Amino acid sequence: MQFELTKEFIDQIRDHIEKSNEVGAFKLVKGLHPADIAEIYDELSIDEARFIHVMLDAEDAAEVLVELEEEDRERFLKVLPTEDIADFIEKLDSDDAADVIGEFPEEKQEEVLSHIDDLEQAGDIVDLLNYDEDSAGGLMAKELITVNENWNIMTCLKEMRKQAEDVDEIYYVYVIDDNEVLKGTLSLKKLLVTASNRKIANIINTDIILVKTDTPSEEVANIMDKYDLVALPVVDALNRLVGRITIDDIVDVIREEAERDYQLVSGITQDVESSDSAWVHTRARIPWLFIGLFGGIIAALVMGVYEVDLGINPNMVFFIPLIAAMGGNVGVQSSSIIVQALASNSMGFESMGRKLFKELGVATINGIILSTVIFAYNYFFSDSFALTITVSAALFSVIVFASIFGTYVPMFLDKLKIDPALATGPFITTVNDIMGLFIYLMIGRAFFTFF
Amino acid sequence: MQFELTKEFIDQIRDHIEKSNEVGAFKLVKGLHPADIAEIYDELSIDEARFIHVMLDAEDAAEVLVELEEEDRERFLKVLPTEDIADFIEKLDSDDAADVIGEFPEEKQEEVLSHIDDLEQAGDIVDLLNYDEDSAGGLMAKELITVNENWNIMTCLKEMRKQAEDVDEIYYVYVIDDNEVLKGTLSLKKLLVTASNRKIANIINTDIILVKTDTPSEEVANIMDKYDLVALPVVDALNRLVGRITIDDIVDVIREEAERDYQLVSGITQDVESSDSAWVHTRARIPWLFIGLFGGIIAALVMGVYEVDLGINPNMVFFIPLIAAMGGNVGVQSSSIIVQALASNSMGFESMGRKLFKELGVATINGIILSTVIFAYNYFFSDSFALTITVSAALFSVIVFASIFGTYVPMFLDKLKIDPALATGPFITTVNDIMGLFIYLMIGRAFFTFF
Repeated sequence: MQFELTKEFIDQIRDHIEKSNEVGAFKLVKGLHPADIAEIYDELSIDEARFIHVMLDAEDAAEVLVELEEEDRERFLKVLPTEDIADFIEKLDSDDAADVIGEFPEEKQEEVLSHIDDLEQAGDIVDLLNYDEDSAGGLMAKELITVNENWNIMTCLKEMRKQAEDVDEIYYVYVIDDNEVLKGTLSLKKLLVTASNRKIANIINTDIILVKTDTPSEEVANIMDKYDLVALPVVDALNRLVGRITIDDIVDVIREEAERDYQLVSGITQDVESSDSAWVHTRARIPWLFIGLFGGIIAALVMGVYEVDLGINPNMVFFIPLIAAMGGNVGVQSSSIIVQALASNSMGFESMGRKLFKELGVATINGIILSTVIFAYNYFFSDSFALTITVSAALFSVIVFASIFGTYVPMFLDKLKIDPALATGPFITTVNDIMGLFIYLMIGRAFFTFF
Repeated sequence: MQFELTKEFIDQIRDHIEKSNEVGAFKLVKGLHPADIAEIYDELSIDEARFIHVMLDAEDAAEVLVELEEEDRERFLKVLPTEDIADFIEKLDSDDAADVIGEFPEEKQEEVLSHIDDLEQAGDIVDLLNYDEDSAGGLMAKELITVNENWNIMTCLKEMRKQAEDVDEIYYVYVIDDNEVLKGTLSLKKLLVTASNRKIANIINTDIILVKTDTPSEEVANIMDKYDLVALPVVDALNRLVGRITIDDIVDVIREEAERDYQLVSGITQDVESSDSAWVHTRARIPWLFIGLFGGIIAALVMGVYEVDLGINPNMVFFIPLIAAMGGNVGVQSSSIIVQALASNSMGFESMGRKLFKELGVATINGIILSTVIFAYNYFFSDSFALTITVSAALFSVIVFASIFGTYVPMFLDKLKIDPALATGPFITTVNDIMGLFIYLMIGRAFFTFF
């Protein structure tokens, strides 16, 4: 049964470490999955974690490093001599190795690479370091099993056995021609059920889904998700097979993307975990708060312009929070729907004009319903008809404005190749707060003269 | 190369359908992946899609149905006789079959099941229908390859070939004992590289990660993500192997979870796509807007209580939007960090008290910085020192209150086994708007008496 980390476990291991009881501590972590050990490190100090780390076998120790958060890994590796780091790196798959080395400054990268004895692996890592982190090239690993299209199944199985040593898991076998151009895939299932004297060409699946090295990682994720793939071959500009991406890395991409969008809509500027220090939290949160503060000052200035009107109709003030809040809520709703559609590639073929037109429809329905409710409320509970009609008209206008604005801005940013998620959360709320206020005060000035 | 859906393609296919040109239309979709065909349906009307559907071979036609959105599938299947539906179902894997049948009303379920000729499959589907949709049982498929621990590798390969017919992809082979209790897994890689006269027991991996049928799907997703698994065995209360969950279904779970949390933080109550009708959008968005409206009315009432104070110090009004907006922003930040930590199971072992204490630290730093800035602004641009100090003190208090409240509520909901994500977005904004206003007016009343 799998391991579950408990507070007692951490207390126990800490106790062993404090007493320098290596045997006791090792007994606790022996046989655990590297991902579990990484979770334990998360709860320990660097020194405590290092006490455990030196006892692990080299393979596990390397895997644990991959599982750590980037920041923890950095602190962990900082004190190690480059020879030791190179030893860890050699134990890793090429994609993980490149990720870890890629986090070092360039000088240290070269130093570590120079200590890697397996020249083929060092070459693979250097190749991988050339690709953009957020592209298929940056996600792929070099370890894969390839067979030549001219072989028969027997040769193929023999060759696969040889290559399998270097590969963790085999999902597909890739078939290439003499120029390394990808021709198709073999499923292990087909290999299992086919007689071994037949040619590969007979059982090859040529209907392959593949990506180029420069395909953005978001697109890679969408493709693997859409076609339910476990591994995806990556080819270069000449269609030569250069690597494969496995689904576990894509699950991470999907999680990270979702987390980033979630953080932007909630006004957090960087990856922050509940367990990070207060200082990290402050740094992640204060930028958007400054924007909110700035927006609040502008709102104060706008109200200053309408000071006289507010003096004449002081009750107008009561509904300022309502108008501002509704503008903010409606704007966030509209923008986040667009951001989600863009992220999941489900915008369809409606033109921007049509989308805005539909949004206008939604806003009109919502606006009519909500402004009718507030009209009824004020009709019964307020003694100023001018106020009643001002609040309703302003609420309707704010809802329509915020919807259209919230829909348009992310689409516009996307056209400019800027991350549309920037237009969610505090940005849209702040703009809509100010615009809502402005609309309200303007309508108020007009209506109070008429009624 | 894979298919990319374009507007031209849709126009072309529409043109063929309009002219009832079956040959032309079929040429366009022939050889496409079911996921691509489902994407095409998304752009067509039901009748147009049906024109294409009847031309597909039965296997593809069934797969396309699985790829459709639930609502589209429902409309699509509504007009089909149950015999035809049963024919589709028979072509599907047990988990997809159970998902599709599970969407029907109970009566129709029985009707469809009675038309499935393969009694074993019908039995599997009935089994799967018993499990909660959001549990491992609801996610698993019955198709898997099992071998007995007492066999040798030769027998094993022979048996696997027989079983492989029913299974789309083989990731692992599961080893069971005579009572169907799961004993371990065989990796295909090991099978490939091991001599065929050895016993299975020699190459079995007994260090298996597994889940019970009632493990919640979120936990299943966290486990598969953490251990980088492609398939996960599911056992019953007696540890008997009853199914396996594959990563493609888990990718969907992760996406859906992330989308739901995103929707809640942005105030949308149900799954809504940018291409849905205006009516669907209205229904998804108006509930939270009502809460915002209600909050706005309460805010108006709170201000009514302080009407006299506002009359005496009318300039206080100018900073109401700032205070309300900052309370909202800070609250959303705090609550979303907790919600994310709970979702990704990374809360660590800090107690609730410690988390609140740290949040207090973050809030204090943010509060001091931001209230100093607004103090400086008002000091230079406002002529009332009482207002200057009121706004600063209120801003500080609101930031602290909103942080603590935003951190506490989701943790509290989680303790009550209520989805903590409900405490993000409009809920937290609305409460903090009102509380912020209240704090501001209260502090104002106190300070204007003193200064």
